[in-house]
Amino acid sequence: MNAEPTPAPCQNLDPIQRSVAALDSTKVVLERICTAREVTGKVGPRSFLHAGPPIELDRIPGPMRGAIIGGLLLEGEAKDVAEAEAIIDAGDVEISPCHDAGALGAMAGIITPSMPVAVARSDRHTTFAPLNEGTDGAVRYGSYDEKTLARLRWMATDMVAVLDEAVQGSAPIDLVDLITEGLRRGDECHNRLVATTGNLIIRFAPSFIRSKHQDAAEKVATFMAGNGHFALPFAISMAKALTLAASDVPGSPIVTAMSANGRDFGIRVSGMGDRWFVAPSPIGEPKLVPGARIEDITPTMGDSMISETAGFGAFAMTAAPAIMSFVGGTAAEATQFVAEMRSICAGTSTRFLIPVEEHRGTPIGIDVNKVRATGIAPVINNGMAHRLPGHGRIGAGITRVPIEPFIAASEALSAGAQT
Amino acid sequence: MNAEPTPAPCQNLDPIQRSVAALDSTKVVLERICTAREVTGKVGPRSFLHAGPPIELDRIPGPMRGAIIGGLLLEGEAKDVAEAEAIIDAGDVEISPCHDAGALGAMAGIITPSMPVAVARSDRHTTFAPLNEGTDGAVRYGSYDEKTLARLRWMATDMVAVLDEAVQGSAPIDLVDLITEGLRRGDECHNRLVATTGNLIIRFAPSFIRSKHQDAAEKVATFMAGNGHFALPFAISMAKALTLAASDVPGSPIVTAMSANGRDFGIRVSGMGDRWFVAPSPIGEPKLVPGARIEDITPTMGDSMISETAGFGAFAMTAAPAIMSFVGGTAAEATQFVAEMRSICAGTSTRFLIPVEEHRGTPIGIDVNKVRATGIAPVINNGMAHRLPGHGRIGAGITRVPIEPFIAASEALSAGAQT
Repeated sequence: MNAEPTPAPCQNLDPIQRSVAALDSTKVVLERICTAREVTGKVGPRSFLHAGPPIELDRIPGPMRGAIIGGLLLEGEAKDVAEAEAIIDAGDVEISPCHDAGALGAMAGIITPSMPVAVARSDRHTTFAPLNEGTDGAVRYGSYDEKTLARLRWMATDMVAVLDEAVQGSAPIDLVDLITEGLRRGDECHNRLVATTGNLIIRFAPSFIRSKHQDAAEKVATFMAGNGHFALPFAISMAKALTLAASDVPGSPIVTAMSANGRDFGIRVSGMGDRWFVAPSPIGEPKLVPGARIEDITPTMGDSMISETAGFGAFAMTAAPAIMSFVGGTAAEATQFVAEMRSICAGTSTRFLIPVEEHRGTPIGIDVNKVRATGIAPVINNGMAHRLPGHGRIGAGITRVPIEPFIAASEALSAGAQT
Repeated sequence: MNAEPTPAPCQNLDPIQRSVAALDSTKVVLERICTAREVTGKVGPRSFLHAGPPIELDRIPGPMRGAIIGGLLLEGEAKDVAEAEAIIDAGDVEISPCHDAGALGAMAGIITPSMPVAVARSDRHTTFAPLNEGTDGAVRYGSYDEKTLARLRWMATDMVAVLDEAVQGSAPIDLVDLITEGLRRGDECHNRLVATTGNLIIRFAPSFIRSKHQDAAEKVATFMAGNGHFALPFAISMAKALTLAASDVPGSPIVTAMSANGRDFGIRVSGMGDRWFVAPSPIGEPKLVPGARIEDITPTMGDSMISETAGFGAFAMTAAPAIMSFVGGTAAEATQFVAEMRSICAGTSTRFLIPVEEHRGTPIGIDVNKVRATGIAPVINNGMAHRLPGHGRIGAGITRVPIEPFIAASEALSAGAQT
């Protein structure tokens, strides 16, 4: 199933307008559900993708180490945890950023060849992200216990079969529309996706009912209904396709990626190609799960803040007042956050509409020059993992990202313009 | 499946508090899906239920006449429209209010023995409402063409089989929770129920997948996904169970029913038993479908305003900003409406919470004395039908109901208190 062609951008537009137009008009459909090796050549038995800007293996935070352990066990490269740790310590595994493969990895973001992914497609790009395992033990939070791996193996086989059968057997799913409808139903589509996940179930239900794999289909429907974040990879794959369309516009100060690896937070800017501008990853003031301590937290990590980069998530917070108690905060604060984000964005979405703002669009297109001028850094909704491998999720928050990379990018753009 | 027992109301409460406590604490579950004849003895081949306060057959509005024609054809009492009209003109059909049978009929509200219904149950009451046919020809809007009747026959057989199989084969569905979750997902659950309908699909999906009736299950899931009002009978049956629990408290000025038949709008009040206080049915300022004229409208009719009586619908309008463009209005007006309703209600729900109001509960328990004192009449969300039989839906609106019945009830209560 092909994505509809994106309307050709008017060549008279200035660089900012061109990036914003791409963010606002690119059409993206759900293409398939498969394993990572079927969609990219950038993974191998010991070549994995990771979240955030580039990082050396010996600097990775605990959850990323846990996820790599999980990946080595999943791929059969290690027979037990000790062997997996030895492989890592010997430097016998290569890692590279998801973003360079058109991929998005939530949290640790380790993607190995056998992992199940959702694949999105625009007329120009293919993007993908791992299916969401839930929060009760998940490789993306650094878990690698047998229960987590068994679930992931089931997802990579039975679930992939059932979901891909549904994708191929249903009318094409427009992933921009999916988010638009989610915003109408109280999701901001980054950290609250319960209605959006429901919409996927609803869209797939007829196919599930006539599935060749009846038992698996029932299990998949039940799993999805119990995992309110299931739609996240569908949302962020779409967001990546939008930001890729907005990329590589000479002179454009629009942010095309925000991402973190637990050590560094980094951004990419349309007019600066693939260059990362980085600063230490923030912790913010997360709402911790009961019993968790702030000193046990891994600083922000993950590629899912591509949501905010594309104009939803925290940038659509007013659409999702019910999320505020999950991330910690009030509906009044949500209004303030969105208003602030409008002051650093170059455009307003004509597709992501916020009902309570009288159907006004979300702010889209973070402009590094506006960030620099206002001193206002973007906010993101994010999950927080324990600092140690295998300890999983310990919180969620609304986090202000560091402003330094935006200022550096703005300065670099200015310098480039003067040469 | 039994509803959990409702906590015993404290006998020290005053009448208002007792009614409000009943509205706020009664538990209601979905009991079954069946035909009307299986749940009530108050219907027969020529004995039908109707929406609103009592009305004589020769006063019924066009859509109700159309619905009775449809009912006579459905029941096989008439072989064609002419014969059905002759039966009505001869007075050979009995009609009585749904409300006296624990039933709720949206719009015309004609319920005949063969019609498919959703049945709710509290520890004390059984209530029911016809399954929603959608808006593309519907008996409740007075349609009786063959396409409408064929769909209704299918709903009464295949759909009932699939849905009741799902109800009996799934964990009990708490209908109060269903509405609570709907409010989190942008429904006010009277005129916008698209997310709530989705939640029913999600709950039923595992059962649909393993259904004995695979083809029918697929058709049911697809029908539900295409009908955003499908959850309405589930919502209003629940609401009726709440208001019945709040009824018959001596001296209580809390409204236990608001309803209209297209001629009269009427209310019942807890302390005044089954007595109706009536006034002419309002038209309001509906948003008409393209091409429709205000002079073609039937004044408000239907039992579905039991939603507002129980504390949702227009009383939860701030939860559903996306509805405002459907009924005509702005999110700012929604805020105003809910604030007004707080001024005439005796309580605040602890179950129906509005995320954007920092999870504050909806106003519950319309107090006729407060309506009289403030001069503020309730508002409802409603659909509007053409004045002629068979012409269907022509609009929707936010309608202010007449204040006179509330004043009359308040005066009658005062008079009663003095005797």
